[in-house]
Amino acid sequence: MAGFVTRREFLNLLGTTGGTAATLRAGAALGLLPGTAASANLDLLNLAGNSRKVAILGGGISGLTVAYELGKRGYDCEILEASHRCGGRIFTVRHGDLIDEIGNRQYCEFDDEPHMYFNAGAARIPSTHRNLLAYCKELGVELEIFINENKTSLVQDDAMLGGKPIRNIDYTTNMRGFMAELMAKAMTAEEMNSPFSESEAETLLGMIRDFGDLSEDDVYRGSFRAGYAEGGFLKHGVQNDMIAFRDLLQTRLGRQLMGANEGDTGPILLQPKGGMDKIIEGFLRQVGDRVKYRAMVAGVQVRDNGVEISYDQDGVRHTMQADYCFNCIPTHLMVGIDHNFPSDYVRAMKYVRRGEAYKAAFQARTRFWEDMDIYGGISWMNNPSRQIWYPTAGIHQQKGVVLGAYDYGGGMYHTKMTQAERIEAHLSDGEKLHPDYRNLVEKPITIAWHRMNHMLGCSARWQRSFGRGWTHEEEELYHRLQQPVNGRHYFIGDQVSMHSAWQESAVMSAQWAMSDLDQRVRAETA
Amino acid sequence: MAGFVTRREFLNLLGTTGGTAATLRAGAALGLLPGTAASANLDLLNLAGNSRKVAILGGGISGLTVAYELGKRGYDCEILEASHRCGGRIFTVRHGDLIDEIGNRQYCEFDDEPHMYFNAGAARIPSTHRNLLAYCKELGVELEIFINENKTSLVQDDAMLGGKPIRNIDYTTNMRGFMAELMAKAMTAEEMNSPFSESEAETLLGMIRDFGDLSEDDVYRGSFRAGYAEGGFLKHGVQNDMIAFRDLLQTRLGRQLMGANEGDTGPILLQPKGGMDKIIEGFLRQVGDRVKYRAMVAGVQVRDNGVEISYDQDGVRHTMQADYCFNCIPTHLMVGIDHNFPSDYVRAMKYVRRGEAYKAAFQARTRFWEDMDIYGGISWMNNPSRQIWYPTAGIHQQKGVVLGAYDYGGGMYHTKMTQAERIEAHLSDGEKLHPDYRNLVEKPITIAWHRMNHMLGCSARWQRSFGRGWTHEEEELYHRLQQPVNGRHYFIGDQVSMHSAWQESAVMSAQWAMSDLDQRVRAETA
Repeated sequence: MAGFVTRREFLNLLGTTGGTAATLRAGAALGLLPGTAASANLDLLNLAGNSRKVAILGGGISGLTVAYELGKRGYDCEILEASHRCGGRIFTVRHGDLIDEIGNRQYCEFDDEPHMYFNAGAARIPSTHRNLLAYCKELGVELEIFINENKTSLVQDDAMLGGKPIRNIDYTTNMRGFMAELMAKAMTAEEMNSPFSESEAETLLGMIRDFGDLSEDDVYRGSFRAGYAEGGFLKHGVQNDMIAFRDLLQTRLGRQLMGANEGDTGPILLQPKGGMDKIIEGFLRQVGDRVKYRAMVAGVQVRDNGVEISYDQDGVRHTMQADYCFNCIPTHLMVGIDHNFPSDYVRAMKYVRRGEAYKAAFQARTRFWEDMDIYGGISWMNNPSRQIWYPTAGIHQQKGVVLGAYDYGGGMYHTKMTQAERIEAHLSDGEKLHPDYRNLVEKPITIAWHRMNHMLGCSARWQRSFGRGWTHEEEELYHRLQQPVNGRHYFIGDQVSMHSAWQESAVMSAQWAMSDLDQRVRAETA
Repeated sequence: MAGFVTRREFLNLLGTTGGTAATLRAGAALGLLPGTAASANLDLLNLAGNSRKVAILGGGISGLTVAYELGKRGYDCEILEASHRCGGRIFTVRHGDLIDEIGNRQYCEFDDEPHMYFNAGAARIPSTHRNLLAYCKELGVELEIFINENKTSLVQDDAMLGGKPIRNIDYTTNMRGFMAELMAKAMTAEEMNSPFSESEAETLLGMIRDFGDLSEDDVYRGSFRAGYAEGGFLKHGVQNDMIAFRDLLQTRLGRQLMGANEGDTGPILLQPKGGMDKIIEGFLRQVGDRVKYRAMVAGVQVRDNGVEISYDQDGVRHTMQADYCFNCIPTHLMVGIDHNFPSDYVRAMKYVRRGEAYKAAFQARTRFWEDMDIYGGISWMNNPSRQIWYPTAGIHQQKGVVLGAYDYGGGMYHTKMTQAERIEAHLSDGEKLHPDYRNLVEKPITIAWHRMNHMLGCSARWQRSFGRGWTHEEEELYHRLQQPVNGRHYFIGDQVSMHSAWQESAVMSAQWAMSDLDQRVRAETA
């Protein structure tokens, strides 16, 4: 089945979509045998004093992984980071932070409180992402649960019920009821004469009835699952009104609501307590002294016996001679930097496109979602802002930070707007869910990854033609980019994975490159 | 629709079942208007010096609620608690704690660490349980997310696949596929000629395909949702094997897995950080000086102008004169205590039966579940131990406390066993999920609520005939028990609710009783 890729991958390539996203899942992750932390498994030769110089271009998580692992084995690592901070798309925005969008620099004005932060890039860690989790463990990064799907959250579509927002559970409960009716019909018509035994058919029919909460006659007549109009504790509950099948069919959001939390958002999701960049801080506690900030790479020349890097820092051109180079600069930026890479390598670098993911966030004056019984999770809108995420950080405190838009497959829609236009768009979109939204939120920030300095794009996109699997050419280009130049220069980062937009991929690409290097070093020293 | 009760209530009355339980949901909870904390809404007259004596029998959460609220209004409250601790079925077991089962006293030997605890009774707070959450907020109880359903956890049934445990997601993904096939068939046969427009039918078919991850020809051929046999990050993923429809139908656990997280376990679930009894501690910070421990009530005499309580403490008989009495002693125990209640009241007291919920827990030597990508949640077994719950407290630390059995509707199966028999039963049941379980866990504790001192039962059961709604007689008896005797004696606790086994009901019963009293007090003082 190697090489099998379905339309699911289409969605994966759209970026890290929300609750019902379809993205690929960790390989060994679902095996039933206990695993061991992959980082501990990384069997790399310790140089024991026989030091070699390693230049790491970019302080994203892949670069930090290399600095940490090779540093432990006696390599002399140096990280050149173009911006004022490490982490790349692992970016937690807090009070005073600069959002370095070209032409739209912003400083975050959230209150200066531990729970008032926004994960503008990576925000979720699936429990199956073992390699990343192993580093969290090893580096002492405290984790807590991230809530993605929340049935108490809202769904809104102008085309459904006159645009009135309803609870997720109102949609899914009613739709399950009607779906179960369909199944029960099919059961009667087809499956009762099927090869199933009576007991099997009975189990299935029972499952269908439970699935939809059908009445005894296999008809859906509404369900207590969708909540009560009143009562339920000290008095009998009054069942909420049923929503008609046809009304439910008016929104295409139903496909997401009735799909599955699958792939990367199927397992339990975790997050570092206090912000995703606690992972970066964890790495920096180990290798922070190895980073040069505001060091912009100007050239990479691969030589027979090493790699020569030139870079600018504080207006001064520097040169660094390294034995090896690990490069997580986005390939579409790297093509514009002086280099002597072979043409097939360059062709691969040029082939990779970039996603345009866009996020916005507000400080909320009160935690209005908790007054609606919403603790974490996502509300869905059928408008360009798409989603509102409610934080679990700071439960029951006065304020919180909400995600006000997550546009992960909308091209440059928000990116092209002025800051004022973006904010107005999210306020008016959000008012459809929360009528008083405009007065409830303040201090907006927006992050258009396609215009963020030193990145100019989000996750790598290898496939031009979605839903048809990887072409032979794409396979070749991918494997070419994964291989080093002259055994000296490696590209790393989620851009060298088939599962971009996740930290796990970045970490694994770094581990792959180090293992490849290690074989060469062992062969040399043997 | 008042009085409408479905077979769902049957499950509710079985107690607080696991992930797919069907229990009633909060009334106003699903309204879209922001609510306000109910405790703040409790409009009770402040006595302002005109103090009245209140005897509170039992220091469960309903009694503490009364002491807290009336205490704030100038009532002079005193709590008589029969045991050595407050909280009743809110019971967090830690190092050194006594489990006071009659004939089977145990002391907990878990390591003395903040995350090494077990919530032996109440363990989950639905985000819709507003009154309880309002107290958590008011009393400064820090909350965190509780994980109930976890698709990475396991399902095991001797009757399915030779007893091999599979991942929850393996079950649900494959079953969704086959269910979607059934629906697609019904769509073709019936719905395509239905009143739906072409666009509606298309939306529905799209939803069905997404629901089951069907192939283009509407056939289920396995799905990446169920994970990969290998690869997925740096290489193409190899799809996991499909499980045959008939195999899936061999376990009745499928009904639970394919049902819904609904009712109380549908919303996001919360838990106090550090153990459920942090709520009790929160109340005791306010009213701790009002509690007499080991004070066993011997008699309750309702007089014209008050209530006389006699109780034994340290071998001495005491008498207390109170203006009012709030009583959360389980009614089936109260009938055996000297009293002068009217006969219809006694008939109601005697009618209420008690659930036999049973839990067991182990200290785990290592967090073996995290090595399997399981972070929190429930694994299901079709054996009497039923469930294993994995903790999220202490993620990535060395040890943790697992629930090893939750028998919520099994009669007295485990309760009748000796301690050694119980432990052996859970070890051998657990080995079916985790082959090395016996060596991974230690220091067992068991809690048979039916034999716990001063309780002798779990949640109240009002209905004798499940699934047929409340009889007229049951309605009458319930309302009789809710009304006070002589305006002086109130029963409180989840026993005076239609939604037993939840803290919210206990809190609401107390609030109802106080509001009723308040009307009488206002009428008197007017």
